[in-house]
Amino acid sequence: MTSWIQTAKDSDFSIFNIPFGIAQLKNSLKYFVATRIGDYVINLSEINRLGYLSHFNISQPVFDARFLNDFIALGKPVTSQVRNELINIFSDSNGNLAQNTLHQSLVMLAHHEVNMLMPVKVGNYTDFYSSIQHATNVGSMFRDPKNALLPNYRHIPIGYHGRASSITVSGTNFHRPKGQTKPADVETPVFGPCKQLDFELEMAFITGKATNLGETITTDKAGEFIFGMVLFNDWSARDIQTWEYVPLGPFLSKSFCSTISPWVVTLEALEPFRVAGEKQTPPVLPYLEFQGNLNIDIQLSVSILAEGSDQEKQVSNSNYKYMYWNMNQQLAHHSVNGCNIEIGDMYASGTISGNDPSAYGSMLEITWRGTKPIAMPDGSERKFIHDKDTVIMRAFAQTNSIRVGFGEARAKVLPAL
Amino acid sequence: MTSWIQTAKDSDFSIFNIPFGIAQLKNSLKYFVATRIGDYVINLSEINRLGYLSHFNISQPVFDARFLNDFIALGKPVTSQVRNELINIFSDSNGNLAQNTLHQSLVMLAHHEVNMLMPVKVGNYTDFYSSIQHATNVGSMFRDPKNALLPNYRHIPIGYHGRASSITVSGTNFHRPKGQTKPADVETPVFGPCKQLDFELEMAFITGKATNLGETITTDKAGEFIFGMVLFNDWSARDIQTWEYVPLGPFLSKSFCSTISPWVVTLEALEPFRVAGEKQTPPVLPYLEFQGNLNIDIQLSVSILAEGSDQEKQVSNSNYKYMYWNMNQQLAHHSVNGCNIEIGDMYASGTISGNDPSAYGSMLEITWRGTKPIAMPDGSERKFIHDKDTVIMRAFAQTNSIRVGFGEARAKVLPAL
Repeated sequence: MTSWIQTAKDSDFSIFNIPFGIAQLKNSLKYFVATRIGDYVINLSEINRLGYLSHFNISQPVFDARFLNDFIALGKPVTSQVRNELINIFSDSNGNLAQNTLHQSLVMLAHHEVNMLMPVKVGNYTDFYSSIQHATNVGSMFRDPKNALLPNYRHIPIGYHGRASSITVSGTNFHRPKGQTKPADVETPVFGPCKQLDFELEMAFITGKATNLGETITTDKAGEFIFGMVLFNDWSARDIQTWEYVPLGPFLSKSFCSTISPWVVTLEALEPFRVAGEKQTPPVLPYLEFQGNLNIDIQLSVSILAEGSDQEKQVSNSNYKYMYWNMNQQLAHHSVNGCNIEIGDMYASGTISGNDPSAYGSMLEITWRGTKPIAMPDGSERKFIHDKDTVIMRAFAQTNSIRVGFGEARAKVLPAL
Repeated sequence: MTSWIQTAKDSDFSIFNIPFGIAQLKNSLKYFVATRIGDYVINLSEINRLGYLSHFNISQPVFDARFLNDFIALGKPVTSQVRNELINIFSDSNGNLAQNTLHQSLVMLAHHEVNMLMPVKVGNYTDFYSSIQHATNVGSMFRDPKNALLPNYRHIPIGYHGRASSITVSGTNFHRPKGQTKPADVETPVFGPCKQLDFELEMAFITGKATNLGETITTDKAGEFIFGMVLFNDWSARDIQTWEYVPLGPFLSKSFCSTISPWVVTLEALEPFRVAGEKQTPPVLPYLEFQGNLNIDIQLSVSILAEGSDQEKQVSNSNYKYMYWNMNQQLAHHSVNGCNIEIGDMYASGTISGNDPSAYGSMLEITWRGTKPIAMPDGSERKFIHDKDTVIMRAFAQTNSIRVGFGEARAKVLPAL
């Protein structure tokens, strides 16, 4: 299947993708629900207004909303069919819109004509810690290489609540955070700009169905609650984290900014890329058991672009399939105590690191706490992220004939205020 | 000053209070912004419709909203004047409404005619750990009595992100959570109902003004960002917490339910009760320094009511003035890294314990991990909270002539599902 919109072979936005986002015309306040095919952003508000989706009877404000939450709230039986209809409208075999240049001029926008906005209003944000290699690396560095994993790691999909307000969309630059740190060589803490600013390469899923307080979600049913996924950069201030995180976990070291990709790729689009995860040993408790292949083969990369340079340095090449705990287990665990899930919640994976150092997902691991600096194309080196560095994450899944990608999660670090 | 509405001397809702909440007529779907005086809930939607607040030009939907967020978003210069006008309308010296029985029949409702709903849509929820006696007790029990406080405690207002979705209003009963625990005498974790269910006696403040990402709030200005306060029971599953909380902090042990009082008491109403806090030693970093008396003398109590009993057992008698870190310091710290604050965020204090065991704010501390059970009026004993127990928290501030209270935060524990 191909689209009548020409799509490059390496485009993240083939007709097999059809992600959802919120676009805004440049120099305009008008925003709308959108999808993307190749280099075109498709205005779904216009598509609906022109009647292409009329059989769904979706009220127009759903497509004119500032966030996708109302669209997602239609439920997967509807949104999945809308996506199928969009695939139909844009496939080679369908002539309706393909032959209507007036309509095309209303719905198709070159991607550089729009800005992508934050796609969902995030009600609750949770960050898991589900890459066993990442947990092992961190445990080796900060505790004991021989007992790197804590005793609970293989039993619990460890996670913690994060800050929802500071999640931003790709392209939102931010200032280096300031805070308290306690260097090893001084008695009392000092205040100032973070000296160990880091990225964390993560993916996040967005829930599309709510539960009531007290209800639980089984691993069998978890997929029904997952609308789609985004790339997630969980920016971290390592030096602030080291001093603040006992006994209640990371706080200001994570809450100054997170960066997500603007397009929410649906779970349906990712189904062709399911793979088996690592065998879990020892066996998990019954509520965490699951059937089938629930990991997903998504290729991930991180690059750093220094100010004034035109050459990115790729510093990580990882894969979402390295997750020890899959999304279904994460959601089953999260709700097993009766915690209620809301539409638009975001659940991030934790840093995704593979076994090979080239697949480590943070500078902390890549440079092993700064002991192995990275050489940049301009001759400088990096232990952590410098001011004016731009960090770019990319993600895509691919088989021989199908490519489904996420685009970029990109942000530049501005100097501390 | 007194009100023409008769108010008992020990009422939490004197004319000096004028809190805000969302009330709903019993057997009706209709809800509205409300205040309370004595035994009467006052319908502010009707008050506005009848013209008593017309000079504020507040649009009617603000008073018909499901949550207070839009009202709070009017800004303190407005909401504070609305509160002053309400004090005026209901004071002895004002005859307008006092002499209009038709209007009275429209706006005054006996408190048993309404249900109180969750007052705010909580965007972000943070829980601090700001009672030094509580931190000392926990450190003594779980670590080392001689080094009970961690090295960062007197430098950082320690806090962590909590779950916003599961915050409920007083009267919302909930089921005992289930989860993983690892008893000391077994090799691998087990799954089942929590065996150490506990309350945590806390207060929380609600923000009424937003910041942009990157902006900070000084201790001087923090008061402008605080709309008001509620009582907060941070229900905790101690056995789940013990097994899950390393290395990223409490998660499912806290996210199954929190209970707040329904009336948001404004910061203005609490100003008469300001007192000095404990002197902070060693001195704090400059961004945490503050002027004036910023603690507040609010008397707090916790009672347990067993099923079938009509006699409450008061198990704690504490005070909000025991906080080591005040609200202004908490907000200055929270934003010092540029984390953005939203309208309707909730910031809880952490368990508030005084020096005397009678002032400890959790069963963990009161029974010292279950080693000193409490005798109940019916002859049973409590180490932690039993099924069908109702836990009732109360709070009020009082000087000779003025009493401002919070009512109750009450919830009953139902058996695990």
